[in-house]
Amino acid sequence: MKQILVLGAGRSSTILIDYLVQQCEMRHWKLRVGDVDLQLAEQKVKVHTHAEAFQFDLFDQPNLAKYIADSDLVISMVPAHLHIKVAEVCVELSKHLITASYASDDIKNLHQKAIDKEVLVLMECGLDPGIDHMSAMKVIDEIREKGHDLRTFESFTGGLLASSDTDDNPWEYRFTWNPRNVVLAGQGVVKFIQEGLYKFIPYHKVFRRTEVVHIPGHGFFEGYANRDSLKYRSVYGLENINTIYRGTFRKVGFCKAWDIFVQLGVTDDSYQMENVGLMTHRQFINSFLSYNPHDSVELKLAHYLNLELDGAEMYKLRWVGIFDDTLVGLDKGSPAQILEQILKKRWALRDEDKDMIVMWHKFEFVDGGRIREIHSHMVHTGDNQEQTAMARTVGLPLGIAAMMVLDGKINLTGVRLPISKEVYNPILDELSKFGIQFHETEIDRD
Amino acid sequence: MKQILVLGAGRSSTILIDYLVQQCEMRHWKLRVGDVDLQLAEQKVKVHTHAEAFQFDLFDQPNLAKYIADSDLVISMVPAHLHIKVAEVCVELSKHLITASYASDDIKNLHQKAIDKEVLVLMECGLDPGIDHMSAMKVIDEIREKGHDLRTFESFTGGLLASSDTDDNPWEYRFTWNPRNVVLAGQGVVKFIQEGLYKFIPYHKVFRRTEVVHIPGHGFFEGYANRDSLKYRSVYGLENINTIYRGTFRKVGFCKAWDIFVQLGVTDDSYQMENVGLMTHRQFINSFLSYNPHDSVELKLAHYLNLELDGAEMYKLRWVGIFDDTLVGLDKGSPAQILEQILKKRWALRDEDKDMIVMWHKFEFVDGGRIREIHSHMVHTGDNQEQTAMARTVGLPLGIAAMMVLDGKINLTGVRLPISKEVYNPILDELSKFGIQFHETEIDRD
Repeated sequence: MKQILVLGAGRSSTILIDYLVQQCEMRHWKLRVGDVDLQLAEQKVKVHTHAEAFQFDLFDQPNLAKYIADSDLVISMVPAHLHIKVAEVCVELSKHLITASYASDDIKNLHQKAIDKEVLVLMECGLDPGIDHMSAMKVIDEIREKGHDLRTFESFTGGLLASSDTDDNPWEYRFTWNPRNVVLAGQGVVKFIQEGLYKFIPYHKVFRRTEVVHIPGHGFFEGYANRDSLKYRSVYGLENINTIYRGTFRKVGFCKAWDIFVQLGVTDDSYQMENVGLMTHRQFINSFLSYNPHDSVELKLAHYLNLELDGAEMYKLRWVGIFDDTLVGLDKGSPAQILEQILKKRWALRDEDKDMIVMWHKFEFVDGGRIREIHSHMVHTGDNQEQTAMARTVGLPLGIAAMMVLDGKINLTGVRLPISKEVYNPILDELSKFGIQFHETEIDRD
Repeated sequence: MKQILVLGAGRSSTILIDYLVQQCEMRHWKLRVGDVDLQLAEQKVKVHTHAEAFQFDLFDQPNLAKYIADSDLVISMVPAHLHIKVAEVCVELSKHLITASYASDDIKNLHQKAIDKEVLVLMECGLDPGIDHMSAMKVIDEIREKGHDLRTFESFTGGLLASSDTDDNPWEYRFTWNPRNVVLAGQGVVKFIQEGLYKFIPYHKVFRRTEVVHIPGHGFFEGYANRDSLKYRSVYGLENINTIYRGTFRKVGFCKAWDIFVQLGVTDDSYQMENVGLMTHRQFINSFLSYNPHDSVELKLAHYLNLELDGAEMYKLRWVGIFDDTLVGLDKGSPAQILEQILKKRWALRDEDKDMIVMWHKFEFVDGGRIREIHSHMVHTGDNQEQTAMARTVGLPLGIAAMMVLDGKINLTGVRLPISKEVYNPILDELSKFGIQFHETEIDRD
């Protein structure tokens, strides 16, 4: 009887735990789910003969080691910077580890030891990073195997809101995941390569240098650039690629309106504002506009950023309530924290809302002198606020990978990403049974 | 026979040393000038019976203590973060210390000990900070003494180029001081208070929210906001002031053109670029523009930032050489370092160039129900590239303060700024003999 240990029972673990409970019941294996919050773990596990919840403290290392020692495989859902604490014990005790987080340098340093201990540390095995690696590498490997020359790789992912008849929200956006990450998105400089040239975009231009993508059957999406395109060159073995660009999807029109926040400086998280306790939404925005005793905040903003008073951007800003004479409702905060608080009031998910994950890749390659393109996309919609598309696309790859490892279908050791065929093929196949399915189209450009 | 010790013989010490040599000869006092570079110190001191140069190493504390112990007063011109090393020894040995740098928290912590040791540590006694404090506090104190209510204080200083018949430079600007500080100027968020409201300007808007000031007899100047206006409230005792705003002067039209660099992201100092050794000016700029195989770098830039191809900004950019097919001439560097290198080629001072310091304050106050303004300005031009306005306005206040202290005309102890009458009055009087003179005009607003 094998035993699987899940550490962390937060929002992203819901579907993972459901999947593992089901799999363990079928196989008569054992699942143990630990969280600092015992009640949370119990809620997620519910009542099953093959699963149990327990309380655990990551900083109680002897106890952690005991739980890991009893297991065959660990899935760590703890905060990303704490994975290393779990990974060190797993490698030492020769227990496989799987996470959905980026492989930090600390984790990568365990590679040789993991090989020596004959154990797999599989990182970046969720949605993004995770499914993006798998679905991209599948096409990249196919192009290579045919001897074609890959010139361009572009990839976008978005955690969005599924279209709804009941939503009058002109942003077509609500917080389906960590709001703080959404508010801070794009900060720092964007680096990518286009036609062999390094390109850089400063933060205050990122939301104006967007690309519009059409996905058949799903409409138009607008993508802004991620910071980290360059690092995927070596991960995917694309050192000589002409163009590599990764980004994030929003619905069309979002970025131009969001850019207003960037231009105002209200996404800044580097300093604390004054008198936050007494501040209204309107006063918050006015702090970033020139003083004028006669003009309205709306007019000052529209004039400052060259917006039409009756245009789509001003409509979005009004709708989201930034001009309201309502107290922010925080005692202190940075501009970014205050903006997040204001946006949460209108962008909170309603009971009837469903989230949606959209992923899209473009591969441009030369096939015997002809330039051809493959487009690959996956759109997945959540059922409700528990069974979200995000929780499913993060949780299922982890759960499937765990089963493949314990079933002996994945036999790698060392610190790995899901970029080799023996990993991505079985996982992608299994994901498609849950409706997480990529659709590829090939286009002749010439 | 008193002895004065000057530590640091760099560019900003030239006029200070000349002044002290002269004063020491008159009084038969002794001047010692130390620098890590003995030759530099010797060049500055020249041959005088009352002055000598020596080599010193700030990190050789016993030796440093010996030199300080032999002196009555120390003027520290070492890099700002190293003043604390000098200050600790000075206070311990009860030797007065004067610098032109900001009073750091480390230095401020010496206040009580300096009082106990009956010694003065006079900080911020150069130009800015220095003459700005003195000239502003003089007017602020006068307004207060008359019982008027000060509502607004604005203050701008600029290190500029004196007008020249031979210069076709459309920026009307060259590097008269540390180029790196000019390239990085304005980064971080600007905070100030206007009509009782806190106001914030993000870096990417600083050079577009400027103010134009006319100075009688000297023309128009354009000011952008400094980061640090708020801290002057408590320094000047203006906790309840309605508006406080400090800034930097440039010639009119500079800021709108400089803003292009900010918008492009080429003033970023946070990352290293790739392939710098082979990079031309034009390629550097192109790294921040979209890829397009047909359009010129000029057209892409003009379109991106909405500039007229035949407008003043594009003319400035062309003149300064950023579109040239010339190698940058660095092996590596951040965008800011590369931009500095490019600008140095056209903005280096020519033999015939003279620098100019422009300082301007505006005080708005209520005098028995009437709103009145006092404008105070000082414009000072250098003689040549040795006898610069900058070296004079930094060096003379230091030298004058040193003489006043040793002559017993300033009798303060503790860590101080030159903001009390007994300090600023004699120094301002003496400065006016060197042509560093403030002109005040009073305006009735109603």
